[in-house]
Amino acid sequence: MRVINYPDKKEWQKLLIRPVFETHSLDESVRKVLENVKKNGDEAILKYTEKFDHIRLDSYIVSKEEKVAALKLVDTELKKAMELASDNIAKFHNAQKSSIVEVETLPGVRCWQKAVPIEKIGLYIPGGTAPLFSTVLMLGIPAKIAGCKEIVLCSPPGKDGFLNPAIIYAASIAGIDKMYKIGGMQAIGAMAYGTDTIPAVYKIFGPGNQYVTAAKQMVAREGMAIDMPAGPSEVAVLADESSNPVFIASDLLSQAEHGTDSQVVMITVSKEIADQTIKELESQLNELPRKNLAEKSLAYGKIFLVKDYEEMMELANTYAPEHLIISTSNADSLVEKVINAGSVFIGAYTPESAGDYASGTNHTLPTNGYAVAYSGVNLDAYFKKITFQHINKEGLELLGPAIEKMALAEELTAHQRAISLRLRH
Amino acid sequence: MRVINYPDKKEWQKLLIRPVFETHSLDESVRKVLENVKKNGDEAILKYTEKFDHIRLDSYIVSKEEKVAALKLVDTELKKAMELASDNIAKFHNAQKSSIVEVETLPGVRCWQKAVPIEKIGLYIPGGTAPLFSTVLMLGIPAKIAGCKEIVLCSPPGKDGFLNPAIIYAASIAGIDKMYKIGGMQAIGAMAYGTDTIPAVYKIFGPGNQYVTAAKQMVAREGMAIDMPAGPSEVAVLADESSNPVFIASDLLSQAEHGTDSQVVMITVSKEIADQTIKELESQLNELPRKNLAEKSLAYGKIFLVKDYEEMMELANTYAPEHLIISTSNADSLVEKVINAGSVFIGAYTPESAGDYASGTNHTLPTNGYAVAYSGVNLDAYFKKITFQHINKEGLELLGPAIEKMALAEELTAHQRAISLRLRH
Repeated sequence: MRVINYPDKKEWQKLLIRPVFETHSLDESVRKVLENVKKNGDEAILKYTEKFDHIRLDSYIVSKEEKVAALKLVDTELKKAMELASDNIAKFHNAQKSSIVEVETLPGVRCWQKAVPIEKIGLYIPGGTAPLFSTVLMLGIPAKIAGCKEIVLCSPPGKDGFLNPAIIYAASIAGIDKMYKIGGMQAIGAMAYGTDTIPAVYKIFGPGNQYVTAAKQMVAREGMAIDMPAGPSEVAVLADESSNPVFIASDLLSQAEHGTDSQVVMITVSKEIADQTIKELESQLNELPRKNLAEKSLAYGKIFLVKDYEEMMELANTYAPEHLIISTSNADSLVEKVINAGSVFIGAYTPESAGDYASGTNHTLPTNGYAVAYSGVNLDAYFKKITFQHINKEGLELLGPAIEKMALAEELTAHQRAISLRLRH
Repeated sequence: MRVINYPDKKEWQKLLIRPVFETHSLDESVRKVLENVKKNGDEAILKYTEKFDHIRLDSYIVSKEEKVAALKLVDTELKKAMELASDNIAKFHNAQKSSIVEVETLPGVRCWQKAVPIEKIGLYIPGGTAPLFSTVLMLGIPAKIAGCKEIVLCSPPGKDGFLNPAIIYAASIAGIDKMYKIGGMQAIGAMAYGTDTIPAVYKIFGPGNQYVTAAKQMVAREGMAIDMPAGPSEVAVLADESSNPVFIASDLLSQAEHGTDSQVVMITVSKEIADQTIKELESQLNELPRKNLAEKSLAYGKIFLVKDYEEMMELANTYAPEHLIISTSNADSLVEKVINAGSVFIGAYTPESAGDYASGTNHTLPTNGYAVAYSGVNLDAYFKKITFQHINKEGLELLGPAIEKMALAEELTAHQRAISLRLRH
């Protein structure tokens, strides 16, 4: 980790710069895949599955038999762990339900707003060596709570042609029925355009590699709703002399092990804690199977030494991290000053991994500084809010003249006449 | 308007198809403008203002003097109308404030979610013949209620080099201080990247022509948040034998006068009302100054004759209109069945123009079928929701073993160790 001592505010932006997550260069190949899926549907999907996932499938539907078999393959302890996590995720997202907002803005002018679930949504769960079943829970449970009618899950098949059992188990906990073994760009295309097998959805959720990201961006430009823009995962830890360097190091490493492009930042008022954390990182690093990955990520990591807590929070808000760990003695007062972050972890016994899996908060969060304007996935993400208004004649008499005046000033005569014809009636 | 009698459900999608709002062909020229603004800032902006708005400005800041002068130029009646509208918009959006959601998911595991306003936002207000001051109110008032710290307004200068006085008046009602005379793509670039004069913002709101739309899409791909994708405005009116053809025609024309690409749809169970509406359209059309525009738009308009109310609602939900007017005898029960719409207008005395200006609901709404997944602008649009969690040692003891199990199953050892190191402490 590079230690930066008392940087000048003018330098912050430059010091906090993130690697560019550029996907334009992939546009040509992604566009080709999406167009082919749009045109040839299932046939194209099976072809790409053979090409990219190196497996020839007759059908990419996860059958009832495959589901039953999978449920037996998952370790009992892991099942219990998933159920505990699932309960907490459900509790926290259930509490986010909103009620109808209704206001009579003038006598006879009634306006209200109602959250209505998005009917059809698609979840993409990446493949790779480790099955991201936790993301199935994080994206699937709120979808069920929201009441989305059609929930489609796509995830690439393993080399054996089956979907990972832990993913199937997580999906069944979440109550997701429709699972398909499709990976990457072709999965995004299938959910965006639909095929004979897969229904087209209205919003696509889920992480993915740069190809998946580019595909999501491309369908988003066509009007498809997506959860949020993507970027490498990141953490910022705020520490002072009261913080435990062993814990901090373990949190920084949790982030670093995600991949070489993971962003790891520490902001502290204590030089001593900074030094001790660096030592701890070295010793803990040796015990990790993903040591190589984590080491590369840490090489780009930064420790900022700042003069006081005010500067600490200002720097943290400027960075706008996906995960923010506040492990200082005055954490409770710093929490009030958080403006830009995805999810915040407070105190010595709240590691990021708690939120990644089981505390109840969502782990699908804005990276790359997007926390300045984007929320993480929460119950709202599965709803659109529709407004309604009912005006009676009395109400229109009160409101009408103002509307007429404004409509004419905007040169919209028909808008004015829609009022005057009614008032004269 | 084309009358379609009892169409088969299989034909619906095809019959409801909208014109493609394609902007890819503009990408090259838009990209050039954006890059130039990013690189050359204010200099580029003044250059483009001369090129596109045909006016040479020394400064594009709306000065205090210009503001004072403008306030005197706005007609008193119009001011009063804007203030009434403003009050209603404020009432309805104020009621949308959310409170902190807090849950103890397990003893010692406290999770909460807090809406925090986006610090910096930009509003784009198009120019053209008529000043869209109503959009200033619709986008600016909720921004102030949300508590966004920095609100920037860009709108092209008139031929005289000044900003339209009604726009300035609306902005001052909304409490917006920073107004800039910049139009089109260069305004989007200025707000996205910032210049020496304009601060970069985190989210851009507002309508615009196809160049503005393409520019918003382009900066969105770079991670800038935008209000929603754009498309031509549209209305669907649901009518039965109880509906008033004079009122319906006036509403259809309100939509049609927006532009030749406006989408006008009527769905009815009554052939008689359909026929009478067509006659009314012809006679009312003659009284509109924008007759030519409206006529072209109506030529593409469609009247669907359906067999019952159930089919009426199903067709309306399939279309997912920006504006949905329900003018039937059983409106109250149909309202409950609305799944996809931007804003809904109920009953004979609730014309669309009420919501366009003054009822209190927002008029920035999802077009082009985006209502299946997108909300119109509402108070949420100015916030991001941040999650927080605080776990004490007791809580981590309850939660920890499940996290460890899941982390190891996802092959994330450092995530597991962040727990075990704490539990062993």
